[in-house]
Order: sequence, then C-alpha cells, then structure tokens
Amino acid sequence: MKPAITIGAFAFALAALPLSAAVSFALFTAMLPPAAAQGNEKALIEDLVAANHILVDQAVLDAYGHVSVRNPANPQHFFMGRNLAPALVTAADVVAYDMDGNAINAKPGFTHFLERFIHAEIYNARADVNAVVHSHSMVVIPFANTPIQLRPMFHVSSFLSPNVPVFDIRKAVGGPTNMLVGNAAIGKALAETIGQNSVALMRGHGEVVVAPTIALVVFRAVYTDANARMQAQAIASGAPIVFLDAEEAAAANKVVDQVHGRAWELWKRKVSGQ
Amino acid sequence: MKPAITIGAFAFALAALPLSAAVSFALFTAMLPPAAAQGNEKALIEDLVAANHILVDQAVLDAYGHVSVRNPANPQHFFMGRNLAPALVTAADVVAYDMDGNAINAKPGFTHFLERFIHAEIYNARADVNAVVHSHSMVVIPFANTPIQLRPMFHVSSFLSPNVPVFDIRKAVGGPTNMLVGNAAIGKALAETIGQNSVALMRGHGEVVVAPTIALVVFRAVYTDANARMQAQAIASGAPIVFLDAEEAAAANKVVDQVHGRAWELWKRKVSGQ
Amino acid sequence: MKPAITIGAFAFALAALPLSAAVSFALFTAMLPPAAAQGNEKALIEDLVAANHILVDQAVLDAYGHVSVRNPANPQHFFMGRNLAPALVTAADVVAYDMDGNAINAKPGFTHFLERFIHAEIYNARADVNAVVHSHSMVVIPFANTPIQLRPMFHVSSFLSPNVPVFDIRKAVGGPTNMLVGNAAIGKALAETIGQNSVALMRGHGEVVVAPTIALVVFRAVYTDANARMQAQAIASGAPIVFLDAEEAAAANKVVDQVHGRAWELWKRKVSGQ
Amino acid sequence: MKPAITIGAFAFALAALPLSAAVSFALFTAMLPPAAAQGNEKALIEDLVAANHILVDQAVLDAYGHVSVRNPANPQHFFMGRNLAPALVTAADVVAYDMDGNAINAKPGFTHFLERFIHAEIYNARADVNAVVHSHSMVVIPFANTPIQLRPMFHVSSFLSPNVPVFDIRKAVGGPTNMLVGNAAIGKALAETIGQNSVALMRGHGEVVVAPTIALVVFRAVYTDANARMQAQAIASGAPIVFLDAEEAAAANKVVDQVHGRAWELWKRKVSGQ
Repeated sequence: MKPAITIGAFAFALAALPLSAAVSFALFTAMLPPAAAQGNEKALIEDLVAANHILVDQAVLDAYGHVSVRNPANPQHFFMGRNLAPALVTAADVVAYDMDGNAINAKPGFTHFLERFIHAEIYNARADVNAVVHSHSMVVIPFANTPIQLRPMFHVSSFLSPNVPVFDIRKAVGGPTNMLVGNAAIGKALAETIGQNSVALMRGHGEVVVAPTIALVVFRAVYTDANARMQAQAIASGAPIVFLDAEEAAAANKVVDQVHGRAWELWKRKVSGQ
Repeated sequence: MKPAITIGAFAFALAALPLSAAVSFALFTAMLPPAAAQGNEKALIEDLVAANHILVDQAVLDAYGHVSVRNPANPQHFFMGRNLAPALVTAADVVAYDMDGNAINAKPGFTHFLERFIHAEIYNARADVNAVVHSHSMVVIPFANTPIQLRPMFHVSSFLSPNVPVFDIRKAVGGPTNMLVGNAAIGKALAETIGQNSVALMRGHGEVVVAPTIALVVFRAVYTDANARMQAQAIASGAPIVFLDAEEAAAANKVVDQVHGRAWELWKRKVSGQ
Repeated sequence: MKPAITIGAFAFALAALPLSAAVSFALFTAMLPPAAAQGNEKALIEDLVAANHILVDQAVLDAYGHVSVRNPANPQHFFMGRNLAPALVTAADVVAYDMDGNAINAKPGFTHFLERFIHAEIYNARADVNAVVHSHSMVVIPFANTPIQLRPMFHVSSFLSPNVPVFDIRKAVGGPTNMLVGNAAIGKALAETIGQNSVALMRGHGEVVVAPTIALVVFRAVYTDANARMQAQAIASGAPIVFLDAEEAAAANKVVDQVHGRAWELWKRKVSGQ
Repeated sequence: MKPAITIGAFAFALAALPLSAAVSFALFTAMLPPAAAQGNEKALIEDLVAANHILVDQAVLDAYGHVSVRNPANPQHFFMGRNLAPALVTAADVVAYDMDGNAINAKPGFTHFLERFIHAEIYNARADVNAVVHSHSMVVIPFANTPIQLRPMFHVSSFLSPNVPVFDIRKAVGGPTNMLVGNAAIGKALAETIGQNSVALMRGHGEVVVAPTIALVVFRAVYTDANARMQAQAIASGAPIVFLDAEEAAAANKVVDQVHGRAWELWKRKVSGQ
C-alpha cells in the first residue's frame, strides 16, 4: 500500500525524526509515480532472485537459507522466496510478507520458510536495514560454536567491525529448542543480539547478515565467509593476529560502500550466464 | 517373494509384535497389487541409482563405496549395485541380495562387492533401517583414527546425536585383518557397534550411515561430511566447542525428518542434468 | 613517446650508467622500427589481458586487484586495465599511465584504480621491475597479519628468498587509514618496504608481487599462493619446518627463470579456451 | 632393441637369477611376436598419455612433473613425454630413453626433462618397478619438510607401509644445490633412499612414486595425496592418531593390488571425455 504523503508531511517527517539515509530513500521511492515504482519493484525482485543464485554459486547457501528485501514502496512489507531451495528461486516464487510473517497474496500451494521471523523482526528493529541473508555457512559455524570472535582480517571485511555478536537460542528461550527461529519472540531476541552490527552468528545454526541494499548484503555474506576462512587459517598457526582496529575498519567501510558494486555486478553476470 | 499375508494375520502381527513404523510400511507395501509394487520397485531403483550419483557428486563416494536399499516387497532382500564404481551405476547394474549376501538372479559376469555383509548384517539387526551407505569419506576418517568424538555442530547434523561409535576391526576379530568387512561375522560385529545410532565410523577404513529411506541416508552421509569439516576447523582453533546437546539434537532431528527432502530433490535434479 | 637515440648516444649511455638488463632491453626496444614496436605493444597488451584472466582463473584475484606492465617503448609509462574487475578486462580497457598515476589519453567515462600508486612508485623505485600484481590473496593475508614469515617451501617458490617483507600502512602513515595505497607518498613507503624483494605482504590488505616480465609476475603470484597453502599446512602440524636456505633458493631461482614459461603458456591456453 | 633370447637362455635366466614377477613379465613380453608387441606398445603409450592427464585432473601434477613406464620389450629403455606440461602430452610427444637418460630416436626440436635421471636410476635399482611418477604435490611437500612421517590412514593407502623415506638432496650432495635431480649420481642417491618402498618424499621439492604398472603408480600417487590430506587434518587436531599397523597394511595392500583397476578405469573414462 502506497502511503499518501504530502510534501509538507514529508518535510515534517524529515525534521521530526532521526532518519537514516536508507529510510529517506524508502520514503523517496514511496513518492514515485506508480509506473516507475512498479518498474523498480520488478528490478528489485530480479535482484533478489539473482542474490539467491549468487549466494549458492559462492557457496554461502546450499539447499537451505534465505534472502529477503524490504519493499521500498511499503517498508512494512518485505519480499522473499517461498519455501524452496535458493538455487531454484525464480521471480514467480517471490512472496510479499508483512512484519508478522504473514504472506500477502501468496499463490495456493506455496509454503513459507519456518524462519521468516528472522527477517520480519530485524526489519522491525532496524530502520536502516533493507536486505537480510540467513545462511548455514559452514566456515562461519565454527566461530558460532567457540568463544573466538570473528574480526576483520582485511579492509574488504571491515563491516565486521565493531562486533559480530553470537546469538544462543538456548539462552534466549531459557531451555532446549529445535534451534529454529520459529516465532516472533525468538526473532526479536535475535534482532536484539545483532544490535547495530552487520552480522550475527547463531550458535549451532549459522548466521544472519544485514545491509541497506541487496548488493551490499550479498557482498557482506560472501566476504564474511572469506574472512572466516582467513581467520581460521591464522588461528591454526597459533600466532598472534593483528586485525583492523576500529578506526581503520570504519574508514575502510566507507570504501566498501563505494566499491562493492563491482563484485555484485561481476557475480550477477556470472549467474546470468554471461 | 511376496509373502501371502491375510488381513487377519497382518492384524495379529501388528498386535503381537513391537513394530517400528518402517516395518509397518514394509508389510503395507507387501500387500500392494503387483503392478503398483513393480512401479514402486522401478522408482526405488531409480532413486538408488540417483543416490550413487549424488554421493559421488557430493564427494562422499569416489571410485569405492556403496549404497543399498531394502526391498519393500520383501524385507529379507536388499538392492545394491554390482561391483562397479558408483559413478557408473545404472538400473541395469542393480542386483537383489539376500541377508546372507547371496545375489538373487544376478546376470552372468556380474561380480559383487566384497563388503555386502555390511549391508546384510545391518538390515538383519535394524528393522528400522531401509537404506545403508558405506563410504571412505576422507574428511571423516581422521575422526575414525583419533579419540575425538564426532558430534553435531549444527541442527542439520542433529542425527549424529547421541553417539557416533567407532568400529575397530582389530578388536572385533582379535588380530590383524585386511580391514574389509568380508564376512557375516565381521558384519555382525559392525552392526553391534552401530547399535541404534545413524552413523558409525570404521577405524582405518571409513564409515557406514543408515536411515529409514534412501533420501535420508544420502542426506545424512552428505551432512556427516559437512559436520566433520566444521568440527575439524573448530578443533584446529584449540578453543572449547559447544555442540548441540541431546535435547536440542532430538528436537532438531524431527525438523530434519521434515525438511531433508528439499536437499534430496535439489541433488537429484543436479545429477539428472536439469 | 619514442626518444630519438643515436647509436653513439646509446653506446655512451651503456658506458656511463650501470644499467640492469631490463633497462637495456627497454632501450633496445625503443630503437625498434615503429611497426615492430607497435606489434610488440599489441602483443604485450594481449599478455596483460591474459594475465588478468589467468590470475582470476588461478584464484589469486577476485573482483579486486590489478596487474600492470611497464611500457618497453617508454619506461616512464605503464599499462594497466581501467577500474574494472580483472575477469572483464579486454585490450580496449587498457590505459597508459605516467609515474604520477595520471592516465594518458584515456577514454571518456573511464575511471582508474584508486591504488595505481602501488604500480607507479614501484616502477619508479625498481628499474629491474617491468610487471606488478596487487592482489587480496586470501591464503596470503594470514601471513600478513601474523609475525610468521613467508619462506620458500620448495624450489618453485624460491623467489620468496631472501625475504618477504610486510608493509604496515599504519606505521608508514603514522595513524589510522582506510588501508588503501591511495597516494604517491604511501606508494613510496610500500616500494621502500619491498626493497629488492619479489613479494611484499600488506597487513590487513593483501600483497604486491613484482618481476621483470608479465609471465614471471603471474608465475610468482600463483606460486606465492601455493607456498602459503603449503606453509600453512606445515605450521598447523606444529612441527619444525625446513625451508630452502639462501643458497638453495638462489640456485633454484635460476631454474625458475628458465622454466616458468611452461606454466605461463599452459595457463594462457586455458584462459583462451584451447 | 629386442634382445634375441632363445628358450634355453630364458630357462637359464630363470634358473640362475632371482627374478621378480615383473621382470619375468618383461622377459615374457620380449618374446612376443612383433605385431603383438607393437600393439602392446601402442596401448602402453596410450595409457602413459592417459596417466599424465589423469594426474593433472586429480591435481597431483600441475605444469610440472612427469610419468614414465619401462618398455616391456626392452627393460633397459623407458618411455616418457618430452619436456612438456603433462596436460599437453600426446602419443606423439612420447620418447624412449635409455638408462643413462639419453633419448632414443627423438624428433628434432624435442627437449627433455632435466630430471629424467629420477626415472632412469630407479629403473636401474628396482627390477620390480615399471612405472614412475615424479610430482610437486602440494599436500605432500609439508611432510617432506617436517619430521612427521607419512603413514597409512586407511586401507586404500596401505602401500605407504612400511616406510615413506625422505630424500634430502643437501645431504646426498654434501652442499647446496638447485634442488633438481639433474644427473645420474643424484638419481642414484634418490633410488638408494626409496629402497624397496613405494613412495619417497623429496625435501623442498616433492615426491617420487613407483609401481609395477602405470595403473598402480597413478593409483598410488592419487591416494598418497588423499592420505596426506587426511593425516594433515588429524595432525591439526592434536590428538593421537592410529594408523594401519604393518600386518594390516600388508594384508590391505593385497586387496589394493586387486581393486585399483576400478579407479584407474574410472579416471581414464573421465579424461577421455566419456
């Protein structure tokens, strides 16, 4: 649903609320003429499909895991593939969900990811986040299950600073579970754990990666894996490791914001067979 | 051979014996009209062939190793490829064996796996098992040769709980051997070692993986490998590792029973060239 | 620009200056008739393009990193691809730069690598170097971030002797940065660090590899990676490691100078689809 | 050159000399009618070419390394590719050498491997060996450079028993070298080091693998790599490792002699595009 927002109301909103650039962008696109917005939505869903295929091609996702993107025309909705292996997702499989995890106008026969609450609750908690990846990345899970902190090994993974928190579902729920973020309460606890960070690990399960755009969330997921591999190699050497410090990481992260598109475009070309 | 079972006898059997769901299923399919049973058998053998190719594609099997499935029409028989590299198995290579490891109606020129006793003796000991994989998986053998216990690193490998026993053929036989499970006595000792578990390692040799269906045995074999890789990475860090505890694993295993089909279908598509 | 050099002036130059063989070669090619020199330039640029593709195929480069070659017709210029993923570089994307990092006759719309100063300042400092690779090689970065010295594990990586220095940009600049070699001053500091060696690591960033030809710089980059993998495996064993000593490495390096062409030709065939 | 051996002389030779089965076979084939022997030679050279391609496909060889086979028609000669990357070898590139490393009837323009003395001196020292592989296998070199002994992790690599000696060229020569086995004296020292074993490592260089047939030498090279990977993973865990003991290995090796053909045939199919 496209909210009716007058210029005045928009100005008031800008003045009255601390809005991140991403939310500004969301409101901006909400004001677009219908045709352009529909064109934007089609391109966005194509990017979401590409993101699924890229993350499989880059070995971040296997038969499991999911990617979503907030609807710029309605920030209370997000798009995600229906319950399907990421490698098989097409535009026809993409469903809109609300922030309670309910499907909107889904086709009959479609089933939905048990863990859509990961996405819904992060979108609720983080106005700056417009794209989310949940994966069972196998090079990252060892870090989720040990006290070792994942930290930036190089400038390209600077977004891991300042912190990569670890979500332990047993602590969140207060007892044993089947490890799935299967309802809003657990989703909220996970969102609380990730705080303002880009990545959170999930003990005995995997990770969640967030970003303001699809391109950047895919980039972050791929390079979180790369960082985990490098850090594991360094750790196995037994030698002290120097990581990027907080200032270096913050500065490098601004560069990543500028240059990540090159990797995204290259990966898109690859999965589209060019 | 299809046993003649009247409804009354079936009811008596159900009442008188503690039957697992799998055996019930076996008896059920034994009652099917011949055409449907033959259709089932054809599909089952296609799945067995696919399982061979998937396990090669997923690097669980190389030129060696084998997969079998119990015959639902006659639980005293099982199907397995003849002595051939798994990558080369076709439906025409599949042979029926009895629980002594004898081939039934095999074609002339066919030779048989030396270690068919692994399968026969596990089917004898485990009424709940209808599919068996024997592999020389190289990421798992290091765990077979060291005292380190393979334990579930994430929810997807929850079936490793409660235990992954290690079979040492030297202890079983009481002296040196060529490491092969080459007769019924050694097969029985291996079946005794695996107990009620899903996976047993074989010191200096490989592993055996069991399940109620082909799809699940392939899933378990692939994710036993994945777990071994992750656990090896965590171990090399020297840090204490948190695994799924018994309650978490039992709960997660119920989810695996529900969702493993997605991976199986994806892998089948891949090896069939789609 | 082709300098006008008479035979006499050439002889004087040879007599008066201590010229490395590479510079002699550069002067030599400067005297070639225009057609041959242009033919040489075309072949050189094709090799530069091939080098980009080989280094991606060999997993030394991903979406980032760059390769350059000094212009034999004008040693104050070097050729490099414009700001583009190495996998996508074609001859039309190759730009000539001067030693201040300025593009010469670049096409409109072309952007340039932020870190072209890595190449410019190394060409300035090293008359013997005619080809440079900058990569974010992920098996090498762990060595950049720990005190462990990269040393030759076998004869093929003998060029790592006598030393693989580590450049720490924080020390060079005297404070935090975004980790990029984004100006001539930082480039000079990196060139100073590499000294007369073939490879320098860059803490929290990657590496730079230099050589007198494209073929040899690609060879060195590929085998630096191979050496890093082998050394990491040896280090993880905890056992003492024997490396090539200085004399062995110097002798083996002469062989590498003779035989590296075989690998280069093989890799070129592979990326050209033969 | 086919030696003229009468039946009587053959009988005398058998009586007078302790001949291994392999030499008996060589003498036997020397007595074959010319056409059959030529047919055998053509098939042997095709297998030699396939061995090169398989070892590249299995990542044992890269642009470097070589495979040879003794000529069954003249055990004083062996066949090997000329100085060429193994991936590129065809039947037309195969040259016959004598035990001094001289080429016999080689084509003009052909150059020869600097290290052909590895092959010649092993054939001289080992009447039971008819095939030799020299590789720079990168998972094996860490074992060559540390005191850790390569030992059989499973039945398939039983041929590593009883011993995998390490050749150190510095000790053999009494001073620094370029690491190459570039003359008969060094070749003899390497042959002395390997003794009666199947594999010897070469410090700072690689390995040599020997066997009575091409199929078995390729099998041994591939599974030496596999064993090295498994053993490295076990070592990195820090836990005590149980290897096959000498009796187990000897018994398992008899099985390997029976079953290695299955892997060889599968690998041949793969490189021939089937």
